[in-house]
Amino acid sequence: MSTPQLSVQPYKGTRDFYPEDMRLRNWFFGKIRQVLECASFDEYNGPMLESLDIYAAKSGVELASEQTYNFTDRGGRQLAIRPEMTPTVARMVAGRVNALSYPLRWFSIPNFYRYERPQRGRLREFWQVNADIFGCDSYEADFEIISVAIKLLRVFGADETMFKVHINNRRFFNDVIAAVTGKDAEGAKAVSKVVDRKGKVPREAYVKDMYTLGLDDEKIAKIDALYTMSIAEATALCPESRGSAELSELFAALAECGLDKYCVFDFGIIRGLDYYTGTVFEVFDEAPENNRAMFGGGRYDNLVGLFVHNTAISGVGFGFGDVTLENFLNIHGLVPASLLSYKVKLLITRFNDVSFTEYEKLSDELVLSGIPAMCYLGTKKFGKQIDYAVASGCTHIVIMGGSELESGMVKVKDLATREETEVARAELVNYFNAL
Amino acid sequence: MSTPQLSVQPYKGTRDFYPEDMRLRNWFFGKIRQVLECASFDEYNGPMLESLDIYAAKSGVELASEQTYNFTDRGGRQLAIRPEMTPTVARMVAGRVNALSYPLRWFSIPNFYRYERPQRGRLREFWQVNADIFGCDSYEADFEIISVAIKLLRVFGADETMFKVHINNRRFFNDVIAAVTGKDAEGAKAVSKVVDRKGKVPREAYVKDMYTLGLDDEKIAKIDALYTMSIAEATALCPESRGSAELSELFAALAECGLDKYCVFDFGIIRGLDYYTGTVFEVFDEAPENNRAMFGGGRYDNLVGLFVHNTAISGVGFGFGDVTLENFLNIHGLVPASLLSYKVKLLITRFNDVSFTEYEKLSDELVLSGIPAMCYLGTKKFGKQIDYAVASGCTHIVIMGGSELESGMVKVKDLATREETEVARAELVNYFNAL
Repeated sequence: MSTPQLSVQPYKGTRDFYPEDMRLRNWFFGKIRQVLECASFDEYNGPMLESLDIYAAKSGVELASEQTYNFTDRGGRQLAIRPEMTPTVARMVAGRVNALSYPLRWFSIPNFYRYERPQRGRLREFWQVNADIFGCDSYEADFEIISVAIKLLRVFGADETMFKVHINNRRFFNDVIAAVTGKDAEGAKAVSKVVDRKGKVPREAYVKDMYTLGLDDEKIAKIDALYTMSIAEATALCPESRGSAELSELFAALAECGLDKYCVFDFGIIRGLDYYTGTVFEVFDEAPENNRAMFGGGRYDNLVGLFVHNTAISGVGFGFGDVTLENFLNIHGLVPASLLSYKVKLLITRFNDVSFTEYEKLSDELVLSGIPAMCYLGTKKFGKQIDYAVASGCTHIVIMGGSELESGMVKVKDLATREETEVARAELVNYFNAL
Repeated sequence: MSTPQLSVQPYKGTRDFYPEDMRLRNWFFGKIRQVLECASFDEYNGPMLESLDIYAAKSGVELASEQTYNFTDRGGRQLAIRPEMTPTVARMVAGRVNALSYPLRWFSIPNFYRYERPQRGRLREFWQVNADIFGCDSYEADFEIISVAIKLLRVFGADETMFKVHINNRRFFNDVIAAVTGKDAEGAKAVSKVVDRKGKVPREAYVKDMYTLGLDDEKIAKIDALYTMSIAEATALCPESRGSAELSELFAALAECGLDKYCVFDFGIIRGLDYYTGTVFEVFDEAPENNRAMFGGGRYDNLVGLFVHNTAISGVGFGFGDVTLENFLNIHGLVPASLLSYKVKLLITRFNDVSFTEYEKLSDELVLSGIPAMCYLGTKKFGKQIDYAVASGCTHIVIMGGSELESGMVKVKDLATREETEVARAELVNYFNAL
């Protein structure tokens, strides 16, 4: 070819999934799918391309345009490659709003694109488990979603030393800021914005901003104290708040069900000021070398209302990305070594005195009986065929030359132990099923 | 919200997968994955976005730009949403060309976007099973790929009355056109282009084009005759052609393995003049109301060479889309009615005299033991809870009021038969496992 040589690299921030990568991903998403189905969540999915305006309606035009891959199609439609699932699922719920049964329990494992600088744990293309409960306003749905999030990690053998769910409540957050500062809703909101940036700016800048809003050292100290308070101490500061009641009920239920060991109250969890409305949480990896938020979620109200006016259907859910999950499993040694090796996989080696079709007939018998098998395609020498079997992850080879074909007794060689066994051809399926 | 109401429709030519759609798709792709893994194909995947130039290198800039969704990212990279898998898989093979073992057997089930007018069987977003064998030049790999394509349909219960594999060979096609017309390679190529359009233009236009190329009625009749000839008759016209040998060997092997009942020789199968180089095939639905090509494939040479110069690794494979597969399964009644109903799924109904956490503990026991279950979230009356159970596809409800909690004996109601059974709470898992 006279064309210039093309790059073998995948596009920046995306990954190729070679068979060993794919087996890992199929394994962990398979386990997650099993848990979610068992917890009575139904799987859905939507298209990769969506109208840009559904992201703009949720996050504002600027943010939606900046963080998404977006373009205009030849029909003049402004499209985005989906950067998250919530607008899609809200659209789908809205599309069947009266036909669906609530509380609706849905999950999906879609891939997303975000236009950002690739860095540890963040790529431009990633997959994410999304689970949501729609149409239940009570703390019970918050409990259920957190309980399911915990199950997703427990199913891999993770315990309370490996992860913790940090929980806060946005209603409580707003009310306690108002109570501590003595400000009205608007004034409290201005303080909230400063508090939201607390961990991200130097202490002096934070204090200066608080002074600007008229807060003195005593009030600043009171807000500082919230970060180390127990639920009882914190909710006592605004006992009438619905957020306080939700937090107390949620933690009481977690304790009664033995899930409190996985959970802590954390006033520092805020998660986007304009979106979440009640319970918010983030799941942290407890590994010292990776102590960071892995994923999070919370309660949001009325996204469905963007599509069907005067329809308020609340939601609570989370999104858990494949990159952070894979990091977590690797750091804690939760990927079984056996995952990448086959239990049984056969290469039927070939000899010149037997026709190709005899080998194909044998491999067909095995494959149609559910035994992973293939016959060697080509004419290379026996030694090369063995090399191929090993490189392809085969556990055994089946040897059938002219004399074995005639006698009906073939040889099976275990590639790990190098032991050779004679097996009647008619018994091969039973032989491998019994291994 | 004051924003205008957004549309609930998915983007033109794409689909939403509600839970019942998702179960169907997970079911058929699950079966296909099982067959391919058992036939020793390894699953891979690549990113949704690729550099536009890999499609341009294969199909030309114009075709690549016309049929793909493509755009330029902020770094000036020209990207396309993948419209097919072959350039991606060629790139991935090239990336590890010396580390991989050949013949390489790979499959993938990616989604694609094509910019075309949506119509029956063709959407803008679709999924496609792709299976390929790389690095085997012999007809044996062609046989193997066709045998696997047949297995993919047989696994759903399809038989030879429902589908047929139409097979031709591009080398044979070129050689027999040269032999019949007496033209050299270049002249034969010009004739081939006209023959390729034979079924798509009126007979008069076809004949006129043939006259223009200097062919007389006798030669035109000879080419017409090829469409009804047997393999033996057709290959006798160019016995020295490697294509003739490949066709004969392939059909002999198919007959010896009992697969000839699924296959026919069809001179009308050409599949893109510039891409395929040997065996080509298309699988037709035999249903009178849907008699059309469902999917196809064939042998192509040296795509990997676009990425690694002076490396010739041949490939043979096929791509089978979800839309045509779903049509086929529906038309032939091959989707089991039971697919959309659960074997066991429980709703634990709630009563005011028992706390939420007692219900959560019970549902946790069941879910962690692998029994699909949930407790009702909310405070609605018993009748509404039953309605919810039915609408959610539950098979049973579990009744545990205060007295049942105390006695340790709960009631199980089968929602189909309306029979009620008393079961010890500690025996619930065994009870449902035994159903």
